[in-house]
Amino acid sequence: MKLVKIGMIGFGNVGHGFIQALIEKKAFFRNELGLEFLITSITDIRYGTIYHPDGLPLKKLASAHDFYEMDPSYFRDWNTIQMIRNAESDVIIELSFTDLKTGEPAVLHCQEALLSGKHVITSNKGPIALHYSMLKGLARDNGVKIGCEGTVMSGSPALRLAIDSLLPTGVTEIKGILNGTTNFILTEMENGSSYDEALKEAQRLGYAEADPSGDVEGFDTAGKVAILSHLVFGTFIKPENIERIGISDITVEDVQEALKNKMHWKLIGSVKKTENGVEASVKPIMLHEDNPLANIKGAGNAIQYRSDLLGEITLIGPGAGRKETAAALIEDLVHIFQ
Amino acid sequence: MKLVKIGMIGFGNVGHGFIQALIEKKAFFRNELGLEFLITSITDIRYGTIYHPDGLPLKKLASAHDFYEMDPSYFRDWNTIQMIRNAESDVIIELSFTDLKTGEPAVLHCQEALLSGKHVITSNKGPIALHYSMLKGLARDNGVKIGCEGTVMSGSPALRLAIDSLLPTGVTEIKGILNGTTNFILTEMENGSSYDEALKEAQRLGYAEADPSGDVEGFDTAGKVAILSHLVFGTFIKPENIERIGISDITVEDVQEALKNKMHWKLIGSVKKTENGVEASVKPIMLHEDNPLANIKGAGNAIQYRSDLLGEITLIGPGAGRKETAAALIEDLVHIFQ
Repeated sequence: MKLVKIGMIGFGNVGHGFIQALIEKKAFFRNELGLEFLITSITDIRYGTIYHPDGLPLKKLASAHDFYEMDPSYFRDWNTIQMIRNAESDVIIELSFTDLKTGEPAVLHCQEALLSGKHVITSNKGPIALHYSMLKGLARDNGVKIGCEGTVMSGSPALRLAIDSLLPTGVTEIKGILNGTTNFILTEMENGSSYDEALKEAQRLGYAEADPSGDVEGFDTAGKVAILSHLVFGTFIKPENIERIGISDITVEDVQEALKNKMHWKLIGSVKKTENGVEASVKPIMLHEDNPLANIKGAGNAIQYRSDLLGEITLIGPGAGRKETAAALIEDLVHIFQ
Repeated sequence: MKLVKIGMIGFGNVGHGFIQALIEKKAFFRNELGLEFLITSITDIRYGTIYHPDGLPLKKLASAHDFYEMDPSYFRDWNTIQMIRNAESDVIIELSFTDLKTGEPAVLHCQEALLSGKHVITSNKGPIALHYSMLKGLARDNGVKIGCEGTVMSGSPALRLAIDSLLPTGVTEIKGILNGTTNFILTEMENGSSYDEALKEAQRLGYAEADPSGDVEGFDTAGKVAILSHLVFGTFIKPENIERIGISDITVEDVQEALKNKMHWKLIGSVKKTENGVEASVKPIMLHEDNPLANIKGAGNAIQYRSDLLGEITLIGPGAGRKETAAALIEDLVHIFQ
């Protein structure tokens, strides 16, 4: 049995999903994977830090909304940086908010963790899209690892599939439906809703935020394309330099007209190797129903790799969700510690 | 640069595809993966053995049909077992014919290689379906590894996806279209052919053999289901003990009737965890077009994993082909040596 001590940054939706998964799958992790996970510390920008070197009680954490509901005897005197440096932990799980312009504060958190000789696992696109090379170098120098499977398609192992399996077969192009909100809206429009109705429904269901531009204008997809370019092709592209067209100009008439020809409008993020380096883009594309990407409905995600030896490989799976993102964190934990 | 010396058993279709891939991707393997592959020896039941410790010339091998066309100065005095034991090689690639009853002669080849401290890579279902535990134990005892990605869906990384990524998320069920020949026949029947016409077309294209029963009666799929059960669930099932119904009783009327309801007949291999152990079967099932498996056309393959945390994950890709199976061998080589 290997005991893994975890420091967590962020006590929001994904954090709660992760704690819940640790509770539900505890026996499975112990008996089938030989791993026992303890969360020794959590820090959140809204609630401060709580710490106990023997581990915090998971069930109480799962039902708590903030740290005031937790035992007042826990040590609470650290800020985030102090927690990263000083808490007894083998790995820092970084789940703070995403900023695709600067990557902060997550970049700083990851740096501090790696410099402290702690592994880092994150589903936060910011630091991976913008500073993966630097973080990878820091990890190497400090003898630790970075896990970031959750940054693209949540727990659907899009990155590990490419890096651990497909790379040696000569991957030349990647295309994907990498944002569930826009795919949900386009599916609703295939069912007859207008763009505005579909967006409102997405907001009602919690898929889209009050300001939906991160999704519908393709910023989120561009961040994922940047990550794919960097991790699979080894080529850094700033998300803001990726050609980007959102879905807000697509009308229900466009979508319905395409359907008549067995075509489906999809927001496709893509990156491919060319003679002049890599070319990346995010834009709506019409796909024929014979393409597996065309048949992805609702908030689903899918990614397609083209390789010299294999032709086309498609992975279909969830792209978001608290349980599904927790799955990515767990995949990375097992990869690092088993 | 790491130099990898390979001993090959089998100089047939897949063997030629592998040699061709080594030629085509030589610069890529050197420059991007830091690996250089030499084939020092090949043995084939029809032609004997050829050996040169500095490596055989790949281009000549690629165009040769047998070993009589190769330089007469190569050492030729070994039988297969002597080659495995004595040839200078780091890994034995086993590509002899498949026997799902006994696994022989491939099991013996794999045993001898592992006992000689050589890694084994194979796309041969026989030894993996029947004797994986024994071979795995031998590999562990001798400090080497077994690669068998090509036994299910050729180079589409169905096994590594499950074992390296999905296992920690709690996989409970696996379903797949694991045989391209039967899927080709069923697709032809959707296009209006009778079963007999579709089978003849499959034979003409080289998908089906003169005696097609291995494919159409589900034996091939059962072998793959046994491998999935053993490698993903850790439960050994003999292929012959798997409930098995082929496609030869399906009529064009059945297929056309299903189509009217947006349903597609598919030969599905499946294995799932239950309270009483694992349950495995191979049988034709009608799937609604909303299921990604329903839309797999022609000789394509696909596999679907159900996991506690992720729900449904689908991998679509090729299931056969010389280039595609060579890709599996290369994935395993890189996994072992990089």
